[in-house]
Amino acid sequence: MSGNSFGQLFKVTTFGESHGEALGVIIDGIPAGLKVEIEDLKKELKRRAPGQHTVHTSRKEEDAPEILSGVFQNKTLGTPITVIVRNTNQRSADYEALKETYRPGHADKTTMQKFGIRDHRGGGRASGRETVARVIGGYFAGLCLPQISFYAYIEEVAHFKLKNVPKDHSVDRGEINIPDKSMSDEVVAFLSDCKAKGESAGGVVSLSILNSPAGLGEPVFDKLKADFAKAMLSIPACIGFSISAGFELAKAPGSVMSSDSKNFGGMEGGISNGEEIHLKMAFKAPSTIGEKAKSGRHDPCILPRVVPVVEAMAKIVMADHYLRQEAYHSFRS
Amino acid sequence: MSGNSFGQLFKVTTFGESHGEALGVIIDGIPAGLKVEIEDLKKELKRRAPGQHTVHTSRKEEDAPEILSGVFQNKTLGTPITVIVRNTNQRSADYEALKETYRPGHADKTTMQKFGIRDHRGGGRASGRETVARVIGGYFAGLCLPQISFYAYIEEVAHFKLKNVPKDHSVDRGEINIPDKSMSDEVVAFLSDCKAKGESAGGVVSLSILNSPAGLGEPVFDKLKADFAKAMLSIPACIGFSISAGFELAKAPGSVMSSDSKNFGGMEGGISNGEEIHLKMAFKAPSTIGEKAKSGRHDPCILPRVVPVVEAMAKIVMADHYLRQEAYHSFRS
Amino acid sequence: MSGNSFGQLFKVTTFGESHGEALGVIIDGIPAGLKVEIEDLKKELKRRAPGQHTVHTSRKEEDAPEILSGVFQNKTLGTPITVIVRNTNQRSADYEALKETYRPGHADKTTMQKFGIRDHRGGGRASGRETVARVIGGYFAGLCLPQISFYAYIEEVAHFKLKNVPKDHSVDRGEINIPDKSMSDEVVAFLSDCKAKGESAGGVVSLSILNSPAGLGEPVFDKLKADFAKAMLSIPACIGFSISAGFELAKAPGSVMSSDSKNFGGMEGGISNGEEIHLKMAFKAPSTIGEKAKSGRHDPCILPRVVPVVEAMAKIVMADHYLRQEAYHSFRS
Amino acid sequence: MSGNSFGQLFKVTTFGESHGEALGVIIDGIPAGLKVEIEDLKKELKRRAPGQHTVHTSRKEEDAPEILSGVFQNKTLGTPITVIVRNTNQRSADYEALKETYRPGHADKTTMQKFGIRDHRGGGRASGRETVARVIGGYFAGLCLPQISFYAYIEEVAHFKLKNVPKDHSVDRGEINIPDKSMSDEVVAFLSDCKAKGESAGGVVSLSILNSPAGLGEPVFDKLKADFAKAMLSIPACIGFSISAGFELAKAPGSVMSSDSKNFGGMEGGISNGEEIHLKMAFKAPSTIGEKAKSGRHDPCILPRVVPVVEAMAKIVMADHYLRQEAYHSFRS
Repeated sequence: MSGNSFGQLFKVTTFGESHGEALGVIIDGIPAGLKVEIEDLKKELKRRAPGQHTVHTSRKEEDAPEILSGVFQNKTLGTPITVIVRNTNQRSADYEALKETYRPGHADKTTMQKFGIRDHRGGGRASGRETVARVIGGYFAGLCLPQISFYAYIEEVAHFKLKNVPKDHSVDRGEINIPDKSMSDEVVAFLSDCKAKGESAGGVVSLSILNSPAGLGEPVFDKLKADFAKAMLSIPACIGFSISAGFELAKAPGSVMSSDSKNFGGMEGGISNGEEIHLKMAFKAPSTIGEKAKSGRHDPCILPRVVPVVEAMAKIVMADHYLRQEAYHSFRS
Repeated sequence: MSGNSFGQLFKVTTFGESHGEALGVIIDGIPAGLKVEIEDLKKELKRRAPGQHTVHTSRKEEDAPEILSGVFQNKTLGTPITVIVRNTNQRSADYEALKETYRPGHADKTTMQKFGIRDHRGGGRASGRETVARVIGGYFAGLCLPQISFYAYIEEVAHFKLKNVPKDHSVDRGEINIPDKSMSDEVVAFLSDCKAKGESAGGVVSLSILNSPAGLGEPVFDKLKADFAKAMLSIPACIGFSISAGFELAKAPGSVMSSDSKNFGGMEGGISNGEEIHLKMAFKAPSTIGEKAKSGRHDPCILPRVVPVVEAMAKIVMADHYLRQEAYHSFRS
Repeated sequence: MSGNSFGQLFKVTTFGESHGEALGVIIDGIPAGLKVEIEDLKKELKRRAPGQHTVHTSRKEEDAPEILSGVFQNKTLGTPITVIVRNTNQRSADYEALKETYRPGHADKTTMQKFGIRDHRGGGRASGRETVARVIGGYFAGLCLPQISFYAYIEEVAHFKLKNVPKDHSVDRGEINIPDKSMSDEVVAFLSDCKAKGESAGGVVSLSILNSPAGLGEPVFDKLKADFAKAMLSIPACIGFSISAGFELAKAPGSVMSSDSKNFGGMEGGISNGEEIHLKMAFKAPSTIGEKAKSGRHDPCILPRVVPVVEAMAKIVMADHYLRQEAYHSFRS
Repeated sequence: MSGNSFGQLFKVTTFGESHGEALGVIIDGIPAGLKVEIEDLKKELKRRAPGQHTVHTSRKEEDAPEILSGVFQNKTLGTPITVIVRNTNQRSADYEALKETYRPGHADKTTMQKFGIRDHRGGGRASGRETVARVIGGYFAGLCLPQISFYAYIEEVAHFKLKNVPKDHSVDRGEINIPDKSMSDEVVAFLSDCKAKGESAGGVVSLSILNSPAGLGEPVFDKLKADFAKAMLSIPACIGFSISAGFELAKAPGSVMSSDSKNFGGMEGGISNGEEIHLKMAFKAPSTIGEKAKSGRHDPCILPRVVPVVEAMAKIVMADHYLRQEAYHSFRS
């Protein structure tokens, strides 16, 4: 009940159940006069869409965005932008059997514990399908930050680990967002095998943000790192967050930690310092395994499709903090 | 600029610079009629206070809490509770030299980048000293949740790692919050050595929450895990957060991940399931090293003192979500 | 930019321009399990719809609500409810001439001053049409408060003034929400005359709320009266608010003011006392007059149609404060 | 329970009971680098202080402000500013008799209905004494808006009514904030008589704001007029609010209403248009009458002392909306 909004000035509110009429998003607090390119938005949605690759779920959802408000003659009006995506490919029948079954690791049981009622046809609000609204929100957040570059990629899947961190944001991420051709090939083979066996895999996504202004983030609770952490952990299946290689860096002595400013991940005291921002997020393997998973209508690994969602959430955080900081521009000398 | 509040219904706002007149906290949204025991509050503050152990900074701050509002005849009135702690042991002279120096890994430079002005006598709002206000907030949050038990402990320091996870919350955490006597002795020796050398260390803190009701947390952005992540990353020096052993569990296949509900860390779909909640937080080694660190007025490792802060933030998150869920009690059958 | 949400726990966010694709509302924080009757919702919308009476604008808008989320098998899920109403009867051509004209008393000029861009086809977000979303929000708020009765009516139009305040909520409000047949007839004749002349009229709406629980409202900024005031003044054309006969009661000495608890309007110290809540709202005459007004596509007086909007906003305020107070139920003995 | 904060970006949180240790305020979101003049702050507090005039309560409270945080070397740091005022002149014994008595028109009864507990020594949070914190907040809000002028004055007391509206903000408001010497003398005599008789009086305060920028306020719920209404109705004893002469203007036909832009009170569509902002607020006569009132420790009329509170709340509203609008400055061409 409540909790469907993110952000203070740039505020995104999502709605819609996985098997309801539509999903969508309201973006409140967007600047006026920004140019909207519907084709760019569709491209972002396609990056997240299922059925794009053999290792994805075989469900196909066209995810055609319809803009209901806030845009006039291809420009933002400064009023709330509402975009919806109709649900067209729900096969509720598939799920009817689940009416009385609570899938472990899903929100099925906890939704009942919380609300006493649920739309048993699917994951409801907890479904990964909700992230389609976030990608739309991220597209509009990005319009506010044309100078900042966001680049996420898969760093680990199961026991596979990226050997060379991409040097910049121009490195090709291939079909499944792994910026290394040979690892990508191995992972595709591995995930195809998983799919056939009804097994699933988790992993780690890295995010690099270039050209961030310094001074974003607030000193105490709304530290930039804190809002990134909340944004990322709000993504389904996300089970870990770190600034740079957080858990490994925790082992390093101060002399090593402080020897290279890269270790600060672009933030000091929770405020951006103008250097590259670098975050890592851990995602668990999907809980749907075994016979059910073999149906093909489930992802054996969500990481390839979560990459654009990670970027979208990061854009939303940055747009919000950018506006928050701008509010004080006239008082800075 | 803004961002000094945490929580929706149970809302904590902190204030005060490390070298100003006082630090403090307003707790808004606390239930009326709760019994306040000032001695219990002082005990919590003492757990965080510096100078309690040889491995701490040698600074002594008495941290005497003064309640200015919201409590009458030892009971909460339901009105905002304000508690302040005067700063008594600042030695500004020590810091004068830092006026033109930005300490790496601190907020010194980014504070200037953000505000264009700073209280150069210390870390200002970004100082670890701000967490005294959180511990006070946590004490009051705990009054709302008498049935829930919070227990944090150090799991790793540098290359030391706890071998046996404590079986329950009664296990003695010793002098520096390590629930294992031999590891504790080793770490004390190691940190004393660090202090002598002007070196510092980071590590990992684990948090266990028992007897949480099911149904806490909201399905999308205000997932319980997301609010925990924000709460923890808002603590100075925190650089990582995970549900259970997040980054390691990300390597596990779905069949393993889903085999034991412990791996879900007490939350499914971001909502508490009534089982033990288990989180891990990574903290970096302090950036103050070398000659400056040898002065003795700095912690070579903040983990022993961060344990009560982790518990306090967790209590604040839980009190807030508990009230949010209670708002709907009359509609649940 | 921002500001399209109202409420803390029961939160309504509206969107849509008067001449865009659709208008709508998200209701976040609604309890789960409430029975939704689409016909009741349509009835509420019809009360606000234009073209229902000869004194209204002759524009006809069907205002067919489409529920996109949050309701399953006619029950609320506890997730955000989204309802949209398509715009079908915009005659943009009528407005094209206004592209370079700023209508006095409308938001035309100030929208440009604020955003630097506007949808010149109509009033955009400032249009009275936006209130269709509030009526939908009010319908759902009412579901949370089945025991509370809301009853608004016209008390003054121009120089006409209601002589007898209705004794209870069963008094027939007639065609244009005036609970007195003879005054109603006079006002209908007067407004028809206004319409013919291109003149317009303002007036006063009274609101009575029965069966409110005591204890709603917060002691300081979120006093119940303060949130009512904000809710009412957020309605287009509202230019005054009072508790009971506020401005007249201000002339009364304390001995008179305190002689009858009715004068407190159901709130003491900003908190409901369990008695009848009584508010009055002043609305100005529409600024569209002269030849433009004679086209028939404008209301000569918005009061008849504003009555359901006043009730809707009151329901939203009460639902929010009801939930806020319920959050603490378990701590009250 | 909650509701002690006002504002989005410029946020004021007040705390303290009338007979507790101290009252105070946190101002979060203030720009950095503003010059603070403690003497100016004291002057503002003196305008609100009791005992300044024979028609006031005879209670004397020094109201010495103590700044605990957020200011360093007389400049704002951009961090939360906390200011407290100790309660020094509570005579709790006077109130002991009231322990079991609920004063009509006060929050005594409703506080019990809401919280089940209260500080019976005084009005608690609902006391007029809480407004000392608002005046402090208003002082700091004013620092953000040096170019805008705020000027409130008494327009009516009981049956006395100001004949000539002041031409500008330089008109002397005399001892009790009435900008007309002869009316002021009459009202002083009248209120002295009230005091002797144990009677009390209400009235109307007018507020004029000059040099407001255009474009402040948001189009829908956070209209500038809506936030002014909430701010004013949150003041104890306020029972009415209007833009310009709201309730009288409601009688005017559209042709008259629109004939003079002054009637819009400086806002169109809820957004400031750059002209003079003009509001009126109705306040009721104090409920303390009869023998109790004769003790001298009560105001027979709060209007003289409410004038600086009205200005303070207006400054807080304007500072907040100014920052909200500034956030978008870089997107306006």
